[in-house]
Amino acid sequence: MSDETFDVIVVGAGVLGVATAYYIQKNNPDKRILLIDRLSAPGQANTAMSAAAVRNMFASSTNQLLTDTSIKFFEHIQEEMGHELMFEKVGYLWLLGEEQFNHESVKLWMERMERSGVHFRVYNKEELKELIPGLNTDFSNDEEAELMNLREVAYGLFGADCGVLDPTRLVDFYYEEFKKISHVKPRFGVNVTRLLLEADPKLDLPGEPFVWQFKRVNGVVTDKGEVLRAETTVLATGAWANELLDPIGMNSLLKAKKRQLFVIHAQDKKDLLDLLYTKGFNELGCIPFVILPTAGAGGSVYFRPQLEEKGFWIGCGDKLGRAYDYVQTEDYANSEISYYELSLYPVLSKYFPAFADVKPVGGWGGGYSYSPDAIPTVYKENGVIVVNGASGSGIMKSDALARIADALYRGQPEAELYGGRKIPSDALSLKHRQVEPENVVI
Amino acid sequence: MSDETFDVIVVGAGVLGVATAYYIQKNNPDKRILLIDRLSAPGQANTAMSAAAVRNMFASSTNQLLTDTSIKFFEHIQEEMGHELMFEKVGYLWLLGEEQFNHESVKLWMERMERSGVHFRVYNKEELKELIPGLNTDFSNDEEAELMNLREVAYGLFGADCGVLDPTRLVDFYYEEFKKISHVKPRFGVNVTRLLLEADPKLDLPGEPFVWQFKRVNGVVTDKGEVLRAETTVLATGAWANELLDPIGMNSLLKAKKRQLFVIHAQDKKDLLDLLYTKGFNELGCIPFVILPTAGAGGSVYFRPQLEEKGFWIGCGDKLGRAYDYVQTEDYANSEISYYELSLYPVLSKYFPAFADVKPVGGWGGGYSYSPDAIPTVYKENGVIVVNGASGSGIMKSDALARIADALYRGQPEAELYGGRKIPSDALSLKHRQVEPENVVI
Repeated sequence: MSDETFDVIVVGAGVLGVATAYYIQKNNPDKRILLIDRLSAPGQANTAMSAAAVRNMFASSTNQLLTDTSIKFFEHIQEEMGHELMFEKVGYLWLLGEEQFNHESVKLWMERMERSGVHFRVYNKEELKELIPGLNTDFSNDEEAELMNLREVAYGLFGADCGVLDPTRLVDFYYEEFKKISHVKPRFGVNVTRLLLEADPKLDLPGEPFVWQFKRVNGVVTDKGEVLRAETTVLATGAWANELLDPIGMNSLLKAKKRQLFVIHAQDKKDLLDLLYTKGFNELGCIPFVILPTAGAGGSVYFRPQLEEKGFWIGCGDKLGRAYDYVQTEDYANSEISYYELSLYPVLSKYFPAFADVKPVGGWGGGYSYSPDAIPTVYKENGVIVVNGASGSGIMKSDALARIADALYRGQPEAELYGGRKIPSDALSLKHRQVEPENVVI
Repeated sequence: MSDETFDVIVVGAGVLGVATAYYIQKNNPDKRILLIDRLSAPGQANTAMSAAAVRNMFASSTNQLLTDTSIKFFEHIQEEMGHELMFEKVGYLWLLGEEQFNHESVKLWMERMERSGVHFRVYNKEELKELIPGLNTDFSNDEEAELMNLREVAYGLFGADCGVLDPTRLVDFYYEEFKKISHVKPRFGVNVTRLLLEADPKLDLPGEPFVWQFKRVNGVVTDKGEVLRAETTVLATGAWANELLDPIGMNSLLKAKKRQLFVIHAQDKKDLLDLLYTKGFNELGCIPFVILPTAGAGGSVYFRPQLEEKGFWIGCGDKLGRAYDYVQTEDYANSEISYYELSLYPVLSKYFPAFADVKPVGGWGGGYSYSPDAIPTVYKENGVIVVNGASGSGIMKSDALARIADALYRGQPEAELYGGRKIPSDALSLKHRQVEPENVVI
């Protein structure tokens, strides 16, 4: 088999891979770009498993910039380009206990959102009770709630510009646009097994590359034994980053963590239907994406309204007690019903009794790819562009991250994001990182 | 088997483990401290594999403080306490090319050492040639050297307070001192297979801990099925940190990397003996620990003089091209002779022709535990104290790191290092890290 040569190889056709392929092709129309993925179609791995909620409600100005510009682009796609993303502005509603609300980190969060013009409003307990009659805000004399370290809801923080979308449709948009202008047929069902690290320049000696040589990645090798060469290799491999980067001595600093979603149907359940069709928050007349107060040290239970299937997706931001993994394993796909029953359900049904005695009709798991600061990593080193580490916010930041990757490809010092705002191209790099730390991590 | 209970369990009896056990016991004389290691004696894993060179020549004031105080304590042990460490002040000699010497990072390094009172002097090429006649400083018309990206030596940076020691003797010191005051017999040949993460408080429900519970580590489980409980678990597990921390969802941010040393004997080889017994640098009348100029992108070849065995240990700081690993694997123990022959030998023999045609008589490998910034990590979270991430400088910083771990154990805001200098106890933590970045990494 003889080597094949491209200008760019993009490994991974999740949302970050297809968006990056699209922007590089758009801004470098003559380049031959190969998009490659081990699954049979784009967006089939963790992108498809996402809760796909999008918010600009961050404390870090870096995160605000990445999400705000991406979300505005999603609106542009849907409203002006006519590509339906099922982007629904249901809003985000954070339910907070008294202590949480008064915590310095929440004050800072609100200050920073105000400073940056991120729209949000605060509801007090009475307003919340009036809007959501099914919300239980009274845990007095509830020993169970006390044992469970649950905090009474005292305030709600609501962001009207946030919402949910269909991640598959977003992938489709970038993928179809890429295909229109691409010169190379994407390849699916092909697994990249290693990066082609070679001496630069090559001396054609056996055993190369040696310590005393400069080195760069000149493409990839696949499980079919193909050697695919390119001047630039883009890695958008999410929770599998270490598999390719560690062997050549590039430390991505990323780790995988399993996250699950459980599906609850509201059909024929009056209390749940009432909750789903809660009025007063948005034009859709439905409950927003809701984040419950943090329970224990375990993270926050949240739910996403699903108007199409008349129900909810329930999830949780697992912290201590949920393993980090070197790379995502196959068992991530399975949801653990006991986890729903023992860890999520008791919390959920305490705040929203409408969920009591209702069982999930299904569920699934996927992998988050965590960076140390939970802010994405985008950088170019040794012929490789890494777009990763979105830590669960990859969909809501995808457009910005892909534009940054393209700016790096073109050697531009700044990336221009949708709407004209700019960010240094190395702001998300590991070596010259310039990000504002985030303290609002679900 | 019923559970056993201690106050502290220290997992890992490498230099960081034994030193930490010693200081915690010394400052908490009544506490029952169990030291446990999967090998048959202390200091048998990576500590024993180290080049055990110690230097205070760092650019980061954090590293300067950690090494300077530790090295002064080693002198104290040897000179005043009469415990022989084979600590020999041979000095460190960094050989630098013209461009390297004039690089901003080296200027900064020298400025910072001057500011901190770290003793060093600069030799120019003529002075070096006179002191070390066997040093080749002339690569003009040497096409091989050019192909190999070798830089002509133009300057030497020499630190007289640096040296080498016997890591096993250092481990012995801490271990013997610990045993004198310890109440619990250390256990060897026992592998800790997992940390005991439990709900806090426990509700004694099946499936605990749940998301909504607070959690802490209450000890360890061993490969013999023992449950060993303790209020505090110290992890000094080096390149195996992820094995225990990842499963409970604590991200150490560490990765292992293999490093090798090769043994060259000088006996009966006049040129090598002349090199070994180079006069003028130290009172021992031998060549210092020498670091060659960085070749290519591969890192620096270095050698350590071995007076006792009349020879040298040769090593290299592998960068791009040498894998990072999730945890150290068994094959780290093996040295790769082709690596010596193809990567180290060509560089070494070009600068020091005395090494030409001499083959190593042996070699071994060990694991570095790299932190993202190559500065150690010491922190207390969830009942666990982690002492790790020394990134190859664990021996030279061991005394300071162990004192910091003890300060964390006692809840002290500051740790007092040898000689009375202080450092905030959380300075090396992941969450409140206050370190000066290092740019001098071998």
